[in-house]
Amino acid sequence: MKPPGSVEQDLDLEALLLTRRTAVERYLEGCVPSDERTPEALREGMRYTLLGGGKRFRPVLTLMASEAVGGELEATLPVAAAVEMVHTYSLIHDDLPCMDDDDFRRGRPTLHKVQSEAMAVLAGDALLTHAFGLLVERFPDVGRAVRLVAELVTGSGTSGMIGGQVLDLSAEGQAGDASLLEQIHRAKTAALIRAAARMGAIAGGGSEDEVAALGEYGERLGLAFQAVDDILDVESSFEHLGKTIGKDARQQKVSAPAVHGLARARELAERHRAAACDAVRDLAGARELSALAHVVTQRQS
Amino acid sequence: MKPPGSVEQDLDLEALLLTRRTAVERYLEGCVPSDERTPEALREGMRYTLLGGGKRFRPVLTLMASEAVGGELEATLPVAAAVEMVHTYSLIHDDLPCMDDDDFRRGRPTLHKVQSEAMAVLAGDALLTHAFGLLVERFPDVGRAVRLVAELVTGSGTSGMIGGQVLDLSAEGQAGDASLLEQIHRAKTAALIRAAARMGAIAGGGSEDEVAALGEYGERLGLAFQAVDDILDVESSFEHLGKTIGKDARQQKVSAPAVHGLARARELAERHRAAACDAVRDLAGARELSALAHVVTQRQS
Repeated sequence: MKPPGSVEQDLDLEALLLTRRTAVERYLEGCVPSDERTPEALREGMRYTLLGGGKRFRPVLTLMASEAVGGELEATLPVAAAVEMVHTYSLIHDDLPCMDDDDFRRGRPTLHKVQSEAMAVLAGDALLTHAFGLLVERFPDVGRAVRLVAELVTGSGTSGMIGGQVLDLSAEGQAGDASLLEQIHRAKTAALIRAAARMGAIAGGGSEDEVAALGEYGERLGLAFQAVDDILDVESSFEHLGKTIGKDARQQKVSAPAVHGLARARELAERHRAAACDAVRDLAGARELSALAHVVTQRQS
Repeated sequence: MKPPGSVEQDLDLEALLLTRRTAVERYLEGCVPSDERTPEALREGMRYTLLGGGKRFRPVLTLMASEAVGGELEATLPVAAAVEMVHTYSLIHDDLPCMDDDDFRRGRPTLHKVQSEAMAVLAGDALLTHAFGLLVERFPDVGRAVRLVAELVTGSGTSGMIGGQVLDLSAEGQAGDASLLEQIHRAKTAALIRAAARMGAIAGGGSEDEVAALGEYGERLGLAFQAVDDILDVESSFEHLGKTIGKDARQQKVSAPAVHGLARARELAERHRAAACDAVRDLAGARELSALAHVVTQRQS
């Protein structure tokens, strides 16, 4: 039973998400190089984190963005998988002792605990490298493939995810304000989610206006996503999240609850969600995208 | 004065190499993102290792391979720079305490000693990411750009450089034989050098036969290069190499001198050099490429 009045009322969003998540999971199985020239330990390291669960939020977003502009799910799968591989590499590297030093992820020991720090560095490097390989080897239109590579670089590079991680680490212990918080969230989280949406739109053959609208949707959704992440780090439990909680406070991170307090952090997430929905209200897939935004902000894990 | 009878006799190879090395260095200056959205510390980290000297052997090879098939130096510079950025990221990650744990590189403290381990991981990730960005953003022909990305993935990925590093680490302490040694050298070193040569040939518009010939040249040259590297680790000094020497023996690496002894290791390098020259003997640039192979095998640092 869906609650009456919810955006999910007439839309079986759960089935829609499950279908896409399943398609992504199945596709990812074939994305870790399995040739005999790839050392077994490296294959295992890549598979352990890439295929070890996760919400698959970013690749599902890529698929839905493609479908929202008339693209085909099947044709977009390599693009969705590339986005998830980049996200996964970033988790592996971020979890390293020299970075956020996390022993658990998705309820399991992190890769450097299971294999070694060296293997975690290398498996992360390999996932990043082969994400670009997917885009040029499995996406048939060369003109779009080149744009997809450029978008992935922008989202995950120095002014995107990697830059955001640097800001996040260097802001530890600082009394952050709203502006620094947004700068960090935009780079560390929203830039890749924006890229995930834009890449879906490009892969699906969307117009420039559609790519821009979905990019704005992705960015706002990413900001909402990270605000919720910060809130869950305060309010949730290890059982729900599958990772150590309360870390932001212990590491004195600049987080949404630290800067705004819990209540206003929730309002912030809600405001970004509404702006995300607004950005795509004229697209054919507006209803599904709004429902996805609802799920992202209401999630408990 | 060149020694009489040397291959450099009628060819001012030194001037040829210097021109190309200078062009690469100048071009690399503009390859580290300088927009204000890239955190200052990240820019510094990337610049420190990328612009901190080095032989520039791989990018010079890319330029020479392009020129050997009629390509233009200027147009090939982004491709050469991408290769050097991937090589540089690999040095930064390989030098980490959890990997080869090197405190010095090119006579200077390694990046994790100057900044931090976290910054070294992230600066390496950023150089890898933006190498792919260069290929799609600065190389105008989209068909070739897609091929260049694929070649760089193959050379630096799981069956290439990263796979080789995994093999190298896991072989430590083992009594390696000639076959394991070649497998490690081929993956860890020769795969990227092969890619550097093939990418130059592709960028320069070479035929499939020319790309293949230059790929074979690069692979053999890469095998010679690594054999010489292993020999220098035994015979050279910190002053010459700018890095800690004698490490292979201390870390019980499977190296050319360990497997073959010094004299036969030198023969091995010479055999690969000859095979490299043989692979390109019908190309217009055969003379320059042979001279380069000579320099690589005779180098003292």
